[in-house]
Amino acid sequence: MPSECQHSEFGLIARFFTPPPPGPDAGVALGVGDDCTLLAPAAGWQLAVSVDTSVAGVHYPEDAPAEAIGHRALAVSLSDLAAMGARPRWCLMALTLAEADEAWLEDFSRGFRALCESSGAALVGGDVTRGATAISVTVMGELLPGTALTRHGGRQGDLIAVTGALGGGAGGLALWQRGERDLDHPLLIRYLRPQPRLVAGEALVGLASAAIDVSDGLVADLGHLLECSGVGATLEPAALPLAEGLVDALGEAGARQAALTGGDDYELLLTLSPACLDEARTRLAVLGLPLTVIGRLEADRGLRGLESQGDGGWQHFHGRSSRGGSP
Amino acid sequence: MPSECQHSEFGLIARFFTPPPPGPDAGVALGVGDDCTLLAPAAGWQLAVSVDTSVAGVHYPEDAPAEAIGHRALAVSLSDLAAMGARPRWCLMALTLAEADEAWLEDFSRGFRALCESSGAALVGGDVTRGATAISVTVMGELLPGTALTRHGGRQGDLIAVTGALGGGAGGLALWQRGERDLDHPLLIRYLRPQPRLVAGEALVGLASAAIDVSDGLVADLGHLLECSGVGATLEPAALPLAEGLVDALGEAGARQAALTGGDDYELLLTLSPACLDEARTRLAVLGLPLTVIGRLEADRGLRGLESQGDGGWQHFHGRSSRGGSP
Repeated sequence: MPSECQHSEFGLIARFFTPPPPGPDAGVALGVGDDCTLLAPAAGWQLAVSVDTSVAGVHYPEDAPAEAIGHRALAVSLSDLAAMGARPRWCLMALTLAEADEAWLEDFSRGFRALCESSGAALVGGDVTRGATAISVTVMGELLPGTALTRHGGRQGDLIAVTGALGGGAGGLALWQRGERDLDHPLLIRYLRPQPRLVAGEALVGLASAAIDVSDGLVADLGHLLECSGVGATLEPAALPLAEGLVDALGEAGARQAALTGGDDYELLLTLSPACLDEARTRLAVLGLPLTVIGRLEADRGLRGLESQGDGGWQHFHGRSSRGGSP
Repeated sequence: MPSECQHSEFGLIARFFTPPPPGPDAGVALGVGDDCTLLAPAAGWQLAVSVDTSVAGVHYPEDAPAEAIGHRALAVSLSDLAAMGARPRWCLMALTLAEADEAWLEDFSRGFRALCESSGAALVGGDVTRGATAISVTVMGELLPGTALTRHGGRQGDLIAVTGALGGGAGGLALWQRGERDLDHPLLIRYLRPQPRLVAGEALVGLASAAIDVSDGLVADLGHLLECSGVGATLEPAALPLAEGLVDALGEAGARQAALTGGDDYELLLTLSPACLDEARTRLAVLGLPLTVIGRLEADRGLRGLESQGDGGWQHFHGRSSRGGSP
């Protein structure tokens, strides 16, 4: 609420994550401070739910700025809502900490809460426990029945398109690991403070035939979409939109590799009928977000167009790629 | 669903936690396998949500049976739904594992899934990551507006009552730490396989004025309820229902201490008007569950009746008590 009573398991949460009193539109009937929070979903709408865990040293470097860790932990979950075209409503955070460092917690919570506010996902529950640092965030969003952007709607002849630019996640991580600490570097911004494409996802409802967010890397995530849709595709690697500064940081081949197989971009990868392309571009242009066609769906299973890359892109197809931190 | 497509982050989940196809009443519009799962909440009902994390070596002994760990991880979250009088509908599990031990995972998932089925909480999302072993479970239940059992409804003159028996959680943990491995020992059953009082919680809707589950220990959890309700209480420690085998295991003083301050009992602690007692007992008797009056709410703040205990019960008021494993 914040409720008038805040207790043991919410002790740290209460101090660093006390949410502002939810407005009448927040859909919160009883706020944090009881055994459960009570939510009032909009009648007739569906709930999109997802959970993601960020582990220190696995999903992000242990020395990443705490504010960025808080932002990212929520952003990666919200990106799943974006990929469904759902509007964020609520989130719950399970925070496991090796130690209760107040300065770290304050920065962490600032990053987390800022994204709560800008995305409209009210923090409605949490648990703080002692252990190796990890953050699990459950997100809940709403959408009208029949409007979800799923992975299985892609059809032969549809265009494959991607929002924004690719490779920034992997490029930013590489820079961080090399010691770059200018937090205003465009690649560090991309890696440390990814912006889930929530408004874009909603704008694409009714236009995109299928969608997925680019978290594991373009080739891997496209593979998921192709498998779910029961189709194949030809990619045009030369068409990939590369993140600002990526070629400077990684060289031409490295940049292309990062765009193809680097993870953590959190752009939307979608398919759509050629007839819908102009309208989709118009809607995203309002958001300042380019939409780039990078290939086409075909009836023949499999992914083509990477044969001449010679950069291992194809071989990476089945593996997770550059997630943050030490392996 | 299970969706025809199961991917990287759901790899382990898919193998060990593939849920059975949900029935038409499960409220699942799109199952596991896409960026999000889509749920269809009942129109006009509220959602009760909560998340709890179980960390190996903190919340349970690292050498506890994997099946029990799976059961407990869900049970502790479901207990929060029970304390609100909500009916379980869905759950999401974020599982962080140090290593992917197939035998362990199989046992763990068996324990988790069995409780999913018996409680009616369909597993609708998950994430499996590598790291120090911890399990965060988000639960979602439904209830009609205005029916929730909160912590703040207790009034002067209400009776304080508790379902089942107390001290079994702490007693079972003590036995486990002493090397007891007979999994049929009543105290080990209580500690390793706690039964969230879900049906009892629903049965108490309309009768209990306030409720909380006993997770941190009776005195601590009663303190939460008193604080939220703005009242005080006098307890009758001699009236506490002790778990089967507790005196044999811990002695008279140890048993009383465990019942007062031991955690992990997951019984319901509730308050109710004396006029509702008979009806509440009748409803719980159908479930084979006793309801024992252990005190009364009073206008004066504070907790009385423990002065003669001399067992430290009072001093434990503000601390978490015997949670599992090594500290």
